[in-house]
Amino acid sequence: MKITAVEAIPYRIPYVRPFGFASGEVRVADNVLVRIVTDEGTVGHAEAVARPYTYGESQVSIVAAARDWFGPALMGADPFARERIQAVLGRTAGNHTVRGAIDVALWDILGRALGQPCHALLGGYTTSMRVAHMVGFGTPESAVEEALAVRHRHGVTAFKVKVGRSPWRVDVDTCRALRAALGPDADLYLDANRGWTAEEAVAAVTAMADLGLTLVEEPCPADGVLARRWVVEQLSLPVVGDESCTRPGEVARQLLDRSCTAVSIKVARTGFTESLRILGLCEGLGAAVVMGNQVDGMLGTLASVTFGAAFRSTSARPGELSNFVAMADDLLTEPLEISDGLLKVRERPGLGADIDDDKLDHYRIDR
Amino acid sequence: MKITAVEAIPYRIPYVRPFGFASGEVRVADNVLVRIVTDEGTVGHAEAVARPYTYGESQVSIVAAARDWFGPALMGADPFARERIQAVLGRTAGNHTVRGAIDVALWDILGRALGQPCHALLGGYTTSMRVAHMVGFGTPESAVEEALAVRHRHGVTAFKVKVGRSPWRVDVDTCRALRAALGPDADLYLDANRGWTAEEAVAAVTAMADLGLTLVEEPCPADGVLARRWVVEQLSLPVVGDESCTRPGEVARQLLDRSCTAVSIKVARTGFTESLRILGLCEGLGAAVVMGNQVDGMLGTLASVTFGAAFRSTSARPGELSNFVAMADDLLTEPLEISDGLLKVRERPGLGADIDDDKLDHYRIDR
Repeated sequence: MKITAVEAIPYRIPYVRPFGFASGEVRVADNVLVRIVTDEGTVGHAEAVARPYTYGESQVSIVAAARDWFGPALMGADPFARERIQAVLGRTAGNHTVRGAIDVALWDILGRALGQPCHALLGGYTTSMRVAHMVGFGTPESAVEEALAVRHRHGVTAFKVKVGRSPWRVDVDTCRALRAALGPDADLYLDANRGWTAEEAVAAVTAMADLGLTLVEEPCPADGVLARRWVVEQLSLPVVGDESCTRPGEVARQLLDRSCTAVSIKVARTGFTESLRILGLCEGLGAAVVMGNQVDGMLGTLASVTFGAAFRSTSARPGELSNFVAMADDLLTEPLEISDGLLKVRERPGLGADIDDDKLDHYRIDR
Repeated sequence: MKITAVEAIPYRIPYVRPFGFASGEVRVADNVLVRIVTDEGTVGHAEAVARPYTYGESQVSIVAAARDWFGPALMGADPFARERIQAVLGRTAGNHTVRGAIDVALWDILGRALGQPCHALLGGYTTSMRVAHMVGFGTPESAVEEALAVRHRHGVTAFKVKVGRSPWRVDVDTCRALRAALGPDADLYLDANRGWTAEEAVAAVTAMADLGLTLVEEPCPADGVLARRWVVEQLSLPVVGDESCTRPGEVARQLLDRSCTAVSIKVARTGFTESLRILGLCEGLGAAVVMGNQVDGMLGTLASVTFGAAFRSTSARPGELSNFVAMADDLLTEPLEISDGLLKVRERPGLGADIDDDKLDHYRIDR
């Protein structure tokens, strides 16, 4: 089997409500559908999301990278030769989400070619994950309203709260209101997206010591090396590295440096192949992992749950799998559904999702 | 004074001969001229170079970033408010060379507005730098031929040799031939661009212990964290971090980790403003610095010597300032000249260079 085309189709779907956090805001899904075609007719799909504040990629750069670099370099390659393909992708720095999407689309092809769902090819640990919903910036009242609505509609009882604001007491008030509204059994954890200083992070998390939080992600900039280590020493919660852990070398360095003690694995940036490496590194070093979300649409979310459900350690905690519920529409012929707080993998070859051609025609912006 | 336009003009000038190294090859300067215009008529220029294997940028992504992100964000800003402008630029990850070029173009404006050369505004330590010429991949004979030609033509007696090949004895043969041809007084140092494994790096550099080398840059991938530390422990030369030290946080982490003991400062990626921060960090931590070259054209090289000559520590070693000699043409009204092994700064406001409009019209590829 040989790759005969790598297509990158930009599309645009609005969000029903904007999603705000310390490093940026998402109002529209300016995403790119990556489609890889083979000479045997098997086609794989994945989704790339432009996150300039995290990776420096734009919709324009994603399309150009697929068209000018990766497409030509992969022409004629065997999709099963993943290690060779990784070597080709790895010659280019950055461009995390387009490289991740190419890898996931190739796994979609592998699963389809073998007649196996990807979650089984990867590890087959379980077939669903508990969902953690991200609560974006707002007032205590709006946060509670959103969390209760998602719990009511989807049965979700785990929430990641976006914090990192100044003054940090705004964040504390929000978390306190959420704990009060959701009761003692809800999973609650924090993501500051580097928005706090080191001192603010320690003060804020300490002020929430009674709230039973489970994790705090990127409390302050990891590039403030000694300050970040001090935060990790001070806090009695695992500190999750996300933006600071975008490739295996960074994961190793941050864990060895004690800049974090847990790691967010995002299929959107490391695909399946490199995420496998990161998983091995984290398990070997004793770092907890959490399946993160790059504010993905349905296809990206399906890729995340496919990877997360395949392994014991990635499915041990709720995965961040619900950002798509805020999108006005999506591209799949059969939408994803979260119910009883769970998202299931698909028991069909590959990722198990097909693209609705009419919707793609409607939302694509390259024609 | 207010910024009224940020233009990014892609252009294409061939190299007379290709320049090869472990992480890539340059055959054509697919660069971008960044031009910033102000309401008072003062205009600044700088050059951005696409280096996908180092930063993931393309000519397309550089133009799009300036047009879609940085141009709109800087409209109306005061060029003197460098700290505010840095905050704006810093909201976007990656995109190093376009951000660096915007900063240098702003300094060009400051110098012109104040009637002062930038080297004086920055520090004014000296007015020229010794030039180190980079010798790309080739045979021992071709390397010697190139080095002797550059010595004959420009008086250059410092050479950085591109290594990192397999088998590493090819590199040793080349370095040995260069030392024999250039005599004991030439400065010789190495850049492996992460091409060797850790074991190869230690073996190769040890095999050259008698050659009087001064530095070895990126001997192996810094992302192999423990292996790289082992290399730094083993070698008795300073190990220069370059690709692994692209922003202040990375510089701090690599130095504190002992992943390198010296740092390449490249104006092409950190402009003047962020390079000042890196310089302070390196001096404070006791790390040697070397002025690196991103395979710059004349405008980028002039920016490098302007920064390098301004400070004692950056001018203490030869700077990598001669890649432009391999370009078939360039954009400046008055070409740079290296003579007696020295490149001088310009004693005119700003960087002291003007763009030849006819040449720009000829080489630009956006019309």
